[in-house]
Amino acid sequence: MTTDSVTSITTGPIRGSHKHHESVDGMSVPFRRVELSNGEHLDLYDTSGPYTDATPHTDLDGGLPRTRDTWTRPDPVDGASTQLAWARAGLVTPEMRYVAAREGVDVELVRSEVAAGRAVIPANHNHPESEPMIIGKAFAVKVNANIGNSAVTSSVAEEVEKMVWATRWGADTIMDLSTGDDIHLTREWIMRNSPVPVGTVPIYQALEKVKGDPTKLTWEIYRDTVIEQAEQGVDYMTVHAGVLLRYVPLAAHRVTGIVSRGGSIMAAWCLAHHRESFLYTHFDELCEIFRRYDITFSLGDGLRPGSIADANDEAQFAELRTLGELTGIAKSHGVQVMIEGPGHVPMHKIAENVRLEEEWCEEAPFYTLGPLATDIAPAYDHITSAIGAAMIAQAGTAMLCYVTPKEHLGLPNRDDVKVGVVTYKIAAHAADLAKGHPRAQERDDALSCARFEFRWNDQFNLALDPDTAVEYHDETLPAEPAKTAHFCSMCGPKFCSMRISADVRAFAEENDLRTQADIDAMLAREMDRKSDEFIASGKNVYLPIEPVG
Amino acid sequence: MTTDSVTSITTGPIRGSHKHHESVDGMSVPFRRVELSNGEHLDLYDTSGPYTDATPHTDLDGGLPRTRDTWTRPDPVDGASTQLAWARAGLVTPEMRYVAAREGVDVELVRSEVAAGRAVIPANHNHPESEPMIIGKAFAVKVNANIGNSAVTSSVAEEVEKMVWATRWGADTIMDLSTGDDIHLTREWIMRNSPVPVGTVPIYQALEKVKGDPTKLTWEIYRDTVIEQAEQGVDYMTVHAGVLLRYVPLAAHRVTGIVSRGGSIMAAWCLAHHRESFLYTHFDELCEIFRRYDITFSLGDGLRPGSIADANDEAQFAELRTLGELTGIAKSHGVQVMIEGPGHVPMHKIAENVRLEEEWCEEAPFYTLGPLATDIAPAYDHITSAIGAAMIAQAGTAMLCYVTPKEHLGLPNRDDVKVGVVTYKIAAHAADLAKGHPRAQERDDALSCARFEFRWNDQFNLALDPDTAVEYHDETLPAEPAKTAHFCSMCGPKFCSMRISADVRAFAEENDLRTQADIDAMLAREMDRKSDEFIASGKNVYLPIEPVG
Repeated sequence: MTTDSVTSITTGPIRGSHKHHESVDGMSVPFRRVELSNGEHLDLYDTSGPYTDATPHTDLDGGLPRTRDTWTRPDPVDGASTQLAWARAGLVTPEMRYVAAREGVDVELVRSEVAAGRAVIPANHNHPESEPMIIGKAFAVKVNANIGNSAVTSSVAEEVEKMVWATRWGADTIMDLSTGDDIHLTREWIMRNSPVPVGTVPIYQALEKVKGDPTKLTWEIYRDTVIEQAEQGVDYMTVHAGVLLRYVPLAAHRVTGIVSRGGSIMAAWCLAHHRESFLYTHFDELCEIFRRYDITFSLGDGLRPGSIADANDEAQFAELRTLGELTGIAKSHGVQVMIEGPGHVPMHKIAENVRLEEEWCEEAPFYTLGPLATDIAPAYDHITSAIGAAMIAQAGTAMLCYVTPKEHLGLPNRDDVKVGVVTYKIAAHAADLAKGHPRAQERDDALSCARFEFRWNDQFNLALDPDTAVEYHDETLPAEPAKTAHFCSMCGPKFCSMRISADVRAFAEENDLRTQADIDAMLAREMDRKSDEFIASGKNVYLPIEPVG
Repeated sequence: MTTDSVTSITTGPIRGSHKHHESVDGMSVPFRRVELSNGEHLDLYDTSGPYTDATPHTDLDGGLPRTRDTWTRPDPVDGASTQLAWARAGLVTPEMRYVAAREGVDVELVRSEVAAGRAVIPANHNHPESEPMIIGKAFAVKVNANIGNSAVTSSVAEEVEKMVWATRWGADTIMDLSTGDDIHLTREWIMRNSPVPVGTVPIYQALEKVKGDPTKLTWEIYRDTVIEQAEQGVDYMTVHAGVLLRYVPLAAHRVTGIVSRGGSIMAAWCLAHHRESFLYTHFDELCEIFRRYDITFSLGDGLRPGSIADANDEAQFAELRTLGELTGIAKSHGVQVMIEGPGHVPMHKIAENVRLEEEWCEEAPFYTLGPLATDIAPAYDHITSAIGAAMIAQAGTAMLCYVTPKEHLGLPNRDDVKVGVVTYKIAAHAADLAKGHPRAQERDDALSCARFEFRWNDQFNLALDPDTAVEYHDETLPAEPAKTAHFCSMCGPKFCSMRISADVRAFAEENDLRTQADIDAMLAREMDRKSDEFIASGKNVYLPIEPVG
């Protein structure tokens, strides 16, 4: 398998960039550096780990270096060795300094947001290979990609490659949703080789242990499964502890009932035994386990809507209130918490989801699946959900769970995973722009400036997906010179609005025009000479880059 | 060319649907009828024309039937034979009745919105082949697709097929942006065979007549070009009459200057001659021409931002104020008007565009290009712009100009056109849902209900793109039986949240549970029997359709 894995994973720098490490308090913080043809460069947030180094990591058997083991963390606070406990005690951890450097913010902002429970740093002590990252609305919006083999569809090696591939394109965390056999082994390989935090849904593996019959589940089986995964280093776990017995019938009259797998498992158990969910009744014990490893709760929305018709209904919000109650309990144990959200929500009902989550759940980081803004486009649900994702992130959601084009239809392949991740990076970045995140607009401006100045390769290299940008460009203008040409494929070398804009700029500078007043003054003056000059200079102008209207 | 054309156009019904005609006051109004396996059916708005009839139109030489010539329109009002003049006079035209039936609204709503100038019905008297449609915020959001050959890249036949192909997937109007040779011939073929309104940018052809040198343009050359196109039946024309001499220098200090082709042409002319734009100084004469044919103005935003950095700046809004002034003049001539908008706008600046357009332009229908919500994803700009498009449409934009994956990089091919149209139908529909358009949610609910009941073929057939939905499904579960299976490809036949939901529903009905009170009452009762029953019935449950969390 080793050889297979090694040969199957994707390594090496992303087109037009190279890994740049910044030394911060003895820690090495990675960035993706794009060198521009005008001598400048831009350092981008990098989630891809050592796989994109000049000399990439390929030893999957050995796993990634256990870097965090060499960092000195503070002593436990009241028995708790969690980022939350330390932050509350005013203590700054190496992880906090690391993420502050990555985000380009002051470390005190990191500490105070974690202390307030408005941000989490998912970092299980047993996952020392991970490069710390932060999830919270004061920071860049993050993206999660789901992987995981479901019986016979993929090998362990394929899953590791999916993880490497997803993080290459920008996934900030990975969720391993494996079912069927080899769950433990698959997860072990992913943990040891993942540079990003890994999340799981322990109830899936617990269900395997009872051969798929949810009514056979017990607290003991679930607890042991959580401990098994905690020991492996899982950084955050989805727990559907808000699906209470009395909420289940609220889903009965929905158009699409219960669509969450974990939610339906717990609903089945509650109805079968007619008892309250063991996840709810044993929540304190669960907190004790999570605290020991500093595992972060991702409180699952088992009753999330599965269609536009069911959005923001009684079942969904009843569960959300309970998630708020559980948030308080978890934090009282010093355990970090985030809250999962929908799903399928029409645009006019999106903001309410964030407002109620913040009000009822102490502003714990919100982690949503899309939401899809319409149900009518299967095969395009990465797009229907990117619309909802961008809007809900603008409203305050801290992390977005990606959706691939195969959602509702089939299992995502390698291309689907890339399209899903890139689409969600678009939604996350659009929200960062709207929220005024310090580093967000730098990249837009750098790319637009390159576009305006016909620095084609800079434009490609600054893109979320340089490979596809080049490929599309070359379909129309394959020749290498075209990548330096002062015109674009839209209209050819005859006329160009960009060139005219350059003339306008020269004209304005020539006449020192900065305000409407300057312009009006100039208009008053006699201008025939300049007019003639312009005609003389304006002979060779080309066609435009955006030929619409 | 004929044979070529005939063989090259795409005809026949869209998968799982057939053309259904409704007779309205002697007019035949087309719908796309989807027959469902549960005996119900859904009629969808249909833009595809006779090309999707059981016996499709293929005679491109003969063109489409000149249906509207047989309709009786009211006499001119004060010399004006325009939908606006008639609507103001309280007169209802066949076109108004036709669009009311298509939209499923009262004809008086149509007449009053047109009379108020809040909606337009682009219908040149010389384009009798078109199926009338309405553009206004009180109606379904519309989508435009741009086609047009740019020298040597495509033949006339290819352009006609692009038009047929784009309307097949839902384009409500087409803009012919052809440049280079054969402009007149290409347009003639498109006009005679287009079932949707056609728009153009006359300045493009005028520029060809002066060999691409904008400084050589004159009012006379432009006027004659407009008349030439008006005679052919062009339904709406983009006119960049708001690019005034004194606004041009405002673009000098932008990151991306002037990106509108028409805008840059007029800017070059204004600077070269140092005179006011002839489009502005001759606007009254232009109105007289438009009135004669009932051509609708699409007042172009020549100074729209070409990057996030330039959004909502002084140049853009200065031009918008002038478009408002021109709106008043056009309407005083009885001419219909819509206003073009950006472009590139970050999410938090989108709403202001609609607010100012409505305030300054008398709520004339807004027609925007996207906008792109970020600049960093060339090759995915159909997605970056779908986010902005959905939001700006929710805020009141009446028509969206599509963007394809090739935007900024190259010329869209057939696949790009389809992806662009489907992506924009998603944005438009998401906005219709958010605005509560009467017919919008019907389709979402029908599809979600089919999904919940495992009516796979109904789910595919109700999708915006049934072909791709089926293709993706078959990649994982090719077998025909899988299309009727009571489980999905996500997890196989073992366990399914949908099935559990059905159990929950049965359970609730069995116990007559409708409110939380009913539920609490039941919980008080002794339930072991039902519990046992459920265990007995709960044995064969499957895996879920949305395996996330």
